[in-house]
Amino acid sequence: MKDSRRTRPPRTIEPIFKSVASGTAGSVPGTPIYIGDRTPVEATLSLIQYNAEQVSFITPESLEEILAMQEEGMVNWVNVNGLADQDLIKRLCGYFRLEALTIEDILNTEHRPKAEDFGQYFFLITKMITRRPDCTVEYEQVSIVITRFGVLTFQEVPGDCFGPVRDRLRTGVGRLRRLGSSYLAYALLDVIADNYFSVLEWLGDQLESKETAAAAQSAGNRFMVDLQGVKADLNRMRRTVWPVREAVGALLHSQSEILEDGLDPFLRDLYENTVQVLDSLEVYREAAASIQEVYLSAVSNRMNEVMKVLTIISTIFIPLTFIAGVYGMNFRHMPELDLPWAYPATWGLMVSVALGMVAYFKKKKWF
Amino acid sequence: MKDSRRTRPPRTIEPIFKSVASGTAGSVPGTPIYIGDRTPVEATLSLIQYNAEQVSFITPESLEEILAMQEEGMVNWVNVNGLADQDLIKRLCGYFRLEALTIEDILNTEHRPKAEDFGQYFFLITKMITRRPDCTVEYEQVSIVITRFGVLTFQEVPGDCFGPVRDRLRTGVGRLRRLGSSYLAYALLDVIADNYFSVLEWLGDQLESKETAAAAQSAGNRFMVDLQGVKADLNRMRRTVWPVREAVGALLHSQSEILEDGLDPFLRDLYENTVQVLDSLEVYREAAASIQEVYLSAVSNRMNEVMKVLTIISTIFIPLTFIAGVYGMNFRHMPELDLPWAYPATWGLMVSVALGMVAYFKKKKWF
Amino acid sequence: MKDSRRTRPPRTIEPIFKSVASGTAGSVPGTPIYIGDRTPVEATLSLIQYNAEQVSFITPESLEEILAMQEEGMVNWVNVNGLADQDLIKRLCGYFRLEALTIEDILNTEHRPKAEDFGQYFFLITKMITRRPDCTVEYEQVSIVITRFGVLTFQEVPGDCFGPVRDRLRTGVGRLRRLGSSYLAYALLDVIADNYFSVLEWLGDQLESKETAAAAQSAGNRFMVDLQGVKADLNRMRRTVWPVREAVGALLHSQSEILEDGLDPFLRDLYENTVQVLDSLEVYREAAASIQEVYLSAVSNRMNEVMKVLTIISTIFIPLTFIAGVYGMNFRHMPELDLPWAYPATWGLMVSVALGMVAYFKKKKWF
Amino acid sequence: MKDSRRTRPPRTIEPIFKSVASGTAGSVPGTPIYIGDRTPVEATLSLIQYNAEQVSFITPESLEEILAMQEEGMVNWVNVNGLADQDLIKRLCGYFRLEALTIEDILNTEHRPKAEDFGQYFFLITKMITRRPDCTVEYEQVSIVITRFGVLTFQEVPGDCFGPVRDRLRTGVGRLRRLGSSYLAYALLDVIADNYFSVLEWLGDQLESKETAAAAQSAGNRFMVDLQGVKADLNRMRRTVWPVREAVGALLHSQSEILEDGLDPFLRDLYENTVQVLDSLEVYREAAASIQEVYLSAVSNRMNEVMKVLTIISTIFIPLTFIAGVYGMNFRHMPELDLPWAYPATWGLMVSVALGMVAYFKKKKWF
Amino acid sequence: MKDSRRTRPPRTIEPIFKSVASGTAGSVPGTPIYIGDRTPVEATLSLIQYNAEQVSFITPESLEEILAMQEEGMVNWVNVNGLADQDLIKRLCGYFRLEALTIEDILNTEHRPKAEDFGQYFFLITKMITRRPDCTVEYEQVSIVITRFGVLTFQEVPGDCFGPVRDRLRTGVGRLRRLGSSYLAYALLDVIADNYFSVLEWLGDQLESKETAAAAQSAGNRFMVDLQGVKADLNRMRRTVWPVREAVGALLHSQSEILEDGLDPFLRDLYENTVQVLDSLEVYREAAASIQEVYLSAVSNRMNEVMKVLTIISTIFIPLTFIAGVYGMNFRHMPELDLPWAYPATWGLMVSVALGMVAYFKKKKWF
Repeated sequence: MKDSRRTRPPRTIEPIFKSVASGTAGSVPGTPIYIGDRTPVEATLSLIQYNAEQVSFITPESLEEILAMQEEGMVNWVNVNGLADQDLIKRLCGYFRLEALTIEDILNTEHRPKAEDFGQYFFLITKMITRRPDCTVEYEQVSIVITRFGVLTFQEVPGDCFGPVRDRLRTGVGRLRRLGSSYLAYALLDVIADNYFSVLEWLGDQLESKETAAAAQSAGNRFMVDLQGVKADLNRMRRTVWPVREAVGALLHSQSEILEDGLDPFLRDLYENTVQVLDSLEVYREAAASIQEVYLSAVSNRMNEVMKVLTIISTIFIPLTFIAGVYGMNFRHMPELDLPWAYPATWGLMVSVALGMVAYFKKKKWF
Repeated sequence: MKDSRRTRPPRTIEPIFKSVASGTAGSVPGTPIYIGDRTPVEATLSLIQYNAEQVSFITPESLEEILAMQEEGMVNWVNVNGLADQDLIKRLCGYFRLEALTIEDILNTEHRPKAEDFGQYFFLITKMITRRPDCTVEYEQVSIVITRFGVLTFQEVPGDCFGPVRDRLRTGVGRLRRLGSSYLAYALLDVIADNYFSVLEWLGDQLESKETAAAAQSAGNRFMVDLQGVKADLNRMRRTVWPVREAVGALLHSQSEILEDGLDPFLRDLYENTVQVLDSLEVYREAAASIQEVYLSAVSNRMNEVMKVLTIISTIFIPLTFIAGVYGMNFRHMPELDLPWAYPATWGLMVSVALGMVAYFKKKKWF
Repeated sequence: MKDSRRTRPPRTIEPIFKSVASGTAGSVPGTPIYIGDRTPVEATLSLIQYNAEQVSFITPESLEEILAMQEEGMVNWVNVNGLADQDLIKRLCGYFRLEALTIEDILNTEHRPKAEDFGQYFFLITKMITRRPDCTVEYEQVSIVITRFGVLTFQEVPGDCFGPVRDRLRTGVGRLRRLGSSYLAYALLDVIADNYFSVLEWLGDQLESKETAAAAQSAGNRFMVDLQGVKADLNRMRRTVWPVREAVGALLHSQSEILEDGLDPFLRDLYENTVQVLDSLEVYREAAASIQEVYLSAVSNRMNEVMKVLTIISTIFIPLTFIAGVYGMNFRHMPELDLPWAYPATWGLMVSVALGMVAYFKKKKWF
Repeated sequence: MKDSRRTRPPRTIEPIFKSVASGTAGSVPGTPIYIGDRTPVEATLSLIQYNAEQVSFITPESLEEILAMQEEGMVNWVNVNGLADQDLIKRLCGYFRLEALTIEDILNTEHRPKAEDFGQYFFLITKMITRRPDCTVEYEQVSIVITRFGVLTFQEVPGDCFGPVRDRLRTGVGRLRRLGSSYLAYALLDVIADNYFSVLEWLGDQLESKETAAAAQSAGNRFMVDLQGVKADLNRMRRTVWPVREAVGALLHSQSEILEDGLDPFLRDLYENTVQVLDSLEVYREAAASIQEVYLSAVSNRMNEVMKVLTIISTIFIPLTFIAGVYGMNFRHMPELDLPWAYPATWGLMVSVALGMVAYFKKKKWF
Repeated sequence: MKDSRRTRPPRTIEPIFKSVASGTAGSVPGTPIYIGDRTPVEATLSLIQYNAEQVSFITPESLEEILAMQEEGMVNWVNVNGLADQDLIKRLCGYFRLEALTIEDILNTEHRPKAEDFGQYFFLITKMITRRPDCTVEYEQVSIVITRFGVLTFQEVPGDCFGPVRDRLRTGVGRLRRLGSSYLAYALLDVIADNYFSVLEWLGDQLESKETAAAAQSAGNRFMVDLQGVKADLNRMRRTVWPVREAVGALLHSQSEILEDGLDPFLRDLYENTVQVLDSLEVYREAAASIQEVYLSAVSNRMNEVMKVLTIISTIFIPLTFIAGVYGMNFRHMPELDLPWAYPATWGLMVSVALGMVAYFKKKKWF
């Protein structure tokens, strides 16, 4: 039943449990099994080795190539894209002496973000949040292992937001090349947090267009469904960033020897950024609630308007139609029918009734 | 009055107090009495004895058979299904020197989940949550007593989710056979928590179908009742898992000597799982609230549409009917009636009025 | 103004301040004055004296009789029903050396539940909650003073729920007769907490009937008023049990020497029971909110249905009536009127219009 | 800008910023300036001097008279009504060596309730809440300075609720005359808290009448505005009493030597009273929310009833009118018109249609 | 991507991400870059140098002029308006040995308010909130660096609320000239907090006018949009002042040697002021919610009224029209038509029906 445990917080509810396979019931705890709702992707490896003087980008053929190239005095950043090849991952983790539960956590792509100090290494699970072209928000788990000699990162699928870090490694601007592995890990976390802000920006744009539509009373029938979709995105992001904040806080307050001196101000800055993301998410949630109220009020106002038109037309013409009906009766003895001025008089009566009604509505400020 | 105390948190409100018998008023605290809303089931016993080398599955005839087979150096897992035979349970508990209040708690199947360290043994109450074929969620209390030499488990009715654990004991894969009684208890708790995820999955499926119905505006009159049913399920599950989380946390932070070294990472993993269940429940609760808002908005929109149709038809035809009524009057002196072009002119007037109305509604964007 | 202070949390708002007399303004703090909204009842006294060997039930003529019978080596339970005779209560409390503020608290029947350790005695205020035959919930304050030699209990009116305790004293089953005064106090608190469960049960029954009515759309105009009444009952009970829980917690964590050794497990059990009452109250509050939503949704659905019927009938017949009106006009030159097939053709037209409308509504799924 | 800072929490929003003068911008912090929204009242002074044996009530001509009469061995209660004469207040405070910020706080009548220990004196800001004859609630700040030799009280306007304390000083009943200045301060705070209960009582009465109106469906258009007014009163009172509770708590836990021994039980009693006020306010807030729900439900029910009447009348008569319209057509060839039994048959048809409709509505339980 | 991180909490959602440039992706953490959504303004500098005896106001040509004039024994207040000239700011900060992250924070005008002790200096970020003439609220970041010899302040744009402080420096009233740099910083913070009160006042005015409109049922279609705008302003202000309060609290509890002795009471006063701002914001938020409820209730009432008018008119005239229709039928055999009293009798019937309806509505209290 191990598998069914791995639930993914939903954008809407739909895609949650789609790919949950229930065939591995009874799996032993601590046995690494790939868990997730994506088609597992074959692992592609990359290694970046650098120190202040030099940097080399390697795309190796095999794991052994990487392991052979590990070198002290250099920072080694091993990045794994795709978690399908469990054997490879287990060998890699075994080389770095990671514990079984760490490997299990790496393979469970639905894990809650967390930070854990294992003495010889520091283990972090965080989430990369990016916007997909089809207007959905993608959550990808990134596991980061910080050792004294380098950093291991594990991603679910190819494609990440680490480009700026690679550029800075390549060009050598800033402190990055001069500092050690924990600063590299910080730089990766910082770039992930930066991406949160662009997703925030995009959600803000969506809210903005919804707000305009609600205020302009031009919202269609899908409005509420879409707005609830944005609210679900905000909720899910909040639930994801909240434990990320905790993980960064744990890193900040950790006494681990693996973290370089002087990293504290940077981690505090990172921590403040995640707090600001959460703050903005709160602002957006309030804004979404506010938009919903404006929309509902607009719907109600429009209903009122419709009712008023109906009422005005009805209450003006129903009495007139009655009058016309009266003189359409076929009684033989209706003295009015023979009076020559009766017809214009009836018109007069009808116009008076109509004007009286209009005056009444004017007084009631109905239009 | 002891009996009336045992309330069961309801799926809906209905089945709560059904079977509460009030005949045992004045019972002495600490006197074990079976309490619950099921027909008590006669106890069936089973014993599994194992160590790294061997394992034996025994379904004994009588309690004494079990007690005679207890053996040091082996882990003894005694499982009791059904709590009706109090005498048997008291003798079993007496053999293992459980305290009177522990026995009372075992027999009270409405007890809150908790963990308590009694020195010689560790006592846990947890809840098994499973989905019944008739689409309701079943809560069954499982009491677990961990001693140095084995584990006692007490269930309300036959049928449980411990199959995978029994399989692992039989086949000997993983650590289970090599480790002691506290690891067995962990394995049982882990399997129970795994089951939470399948119930979650099922609740998620229900929410999903509700969401589709709400968005497609195809929700029937029962929709709200059903949705509130799912919300009640989510609430009840949250109220059940919350103290389970506390109990696991107490186990995790316990200093009890009964717990093996090296169990901590597994318990932490278990703890994280219950936290994730609670997290997902929160997500689902928010989703349920969101679905409700979509539904209510759809209801309101449909009302609006109905009103609009009524208003459009009424306001177009009511003035026309009035005009027709006017020329249906029987006044002798109505000059229009004799004009040869009056009838087509009237038609013209009526078409103009109708077109004017339609133009007005177009301008107001009513259709 | 001392009097006006004593407010009683209301079932509905009505009965709160009814009997507040404002005639004692300026009373000195610490001066015992009976405060409450009941007609004060003359005190009736009773004494139960027991140890493991013997028990005697005494209904004395006067206070002095009780005081004379106090005996060491026996547990003395003095129960006072009715607080009107302040002089008697002051003498009684004086004999047991209770402090002035304790006496004031005993006489103030609107006091918040609390527990206070005075060294020589332990003072508890709790509330007995019972259901009155007229379907209201009655709150009666019970003050309990635990001394080394016995227990004093003070109730507002005759009639209590202590029958089971008296029975156990009489028959001598269980530990009660063998243990001291603090165990007696526990037994009384336990019986009071048991009563909470029967009130809970009754509130659950009420909610159940409301739920059925709401789901069956058979709720009348009083529905909402009644539901709010149940919610007010739940709220009031929660506000009452919450400090009771705190008081029991204070008793549990107290280091007072007056409490016997070995009482802890029982108090913990009692504490867990009050927690469970609060849990169930939360479940009921959520259920009440849920019922309200179902009811409001049902009201809204019914409105929708009414509107639909009106709209369908109106939009079918209004155009037909217009057509009939047209051919009821009295123009001399209406060529259609003279055509022999005009009348059946008009019927044909009208039937077509009606069928078209029906088809439109079918397509819109209005029925 | 010092002035604009002094905002007053509003009953409704209206009277908040009315009298805010913005002319003192740039005033130096710590410079005492009268701030408040009342026309400042000239200070009137009074002195009550007492010990266990004697008491004298003095209304002095000038401040100097008071200062001259200060006497050790007596408790001196100087009361100042009206804060307009800053010079007088500064001289008075100077005589008692109060710090500049204390004086500033005394003059700022919009200050939050608080308690502060200044070593030589203890400074308390609290609020007197009274009901004005015009059905509004009045908040008046009372600053209390407790020194070893007496108590200073500062009020905004003449008229207070200290009458009972003065009476007890005059008559000498109770402990008041026998104890020192901190007990006097307690007595004043106690009387202020007592007044909270009478305001509570009055708000409860208002809620009660609202509840009756809502349940009886006799609420007018002002209902909601009035109910929100009561809610605003409850909110404001809660926001005022909350810091008062904190201030009393600070007094209770203070180690200040100025506070007499033995004051603790009284302060604890006072603290419990403020807690009870807050509890009752919560109950009232819930009651107000409940009344609002009943009211809104009643409005909705009434709407439903109106719609039903309209629908029943319309759907019965619209088809009938159509039938009548058909036979009012003037086609030359309408065979029915010449049949002798056609007219009664038409009546029969119309009655059948009407009865069918009524039966339909009966079946739908519309009346 | 550094840039996209800097989100600005929105008044409404619109202006948030407008000017976010995404061109600086991959910038190195700790690299100062101007971030904000205003067109950066060239820096203008000013220096105020004072001690108890003298004060000089200097508007220097260049930064070097300022640096040259720094003098010990004087308090130096350097104010920078406009953050576009990063080079200048870096040189200034370098002179005062501010750390790189401090400089980055100064340049990031979207930073959360905070207080940080760097040993040699104390760094504060706060927000100036002012009302713009176009009825929006402007948030401007003010960074304050407190050193032993002076204060540095950085603002985004020219124009501030520090006029009163400059006046007090010029005229020398109060303590300001006599005390050191930390008191100057306090004075600046105090003036900023004072400004919060004037914005509060303005928001209160807006709420007041909304409340009047809602109660008078004269609210237009924009009402809800505007009210949500005020609510968004209140929310944003709360989110801004909340961390300001924390920052002031950190300053208050700081042990930094840079803060003068005797500053504590002033900081506590400042802290209490920010608490009061937050309190008032809560009151306003509750008031806004209350206004919204009044408005929605008024809308609903008006709808009810419209429906009632429609229903009354319809239900009176529809039956009458039916009667008239009946006697407008052209059956040859309608005996009533020939009766001489039939016409007046029909009128009688119609009047009776109308009066009956009116009586029914009177009884139902519909008007």
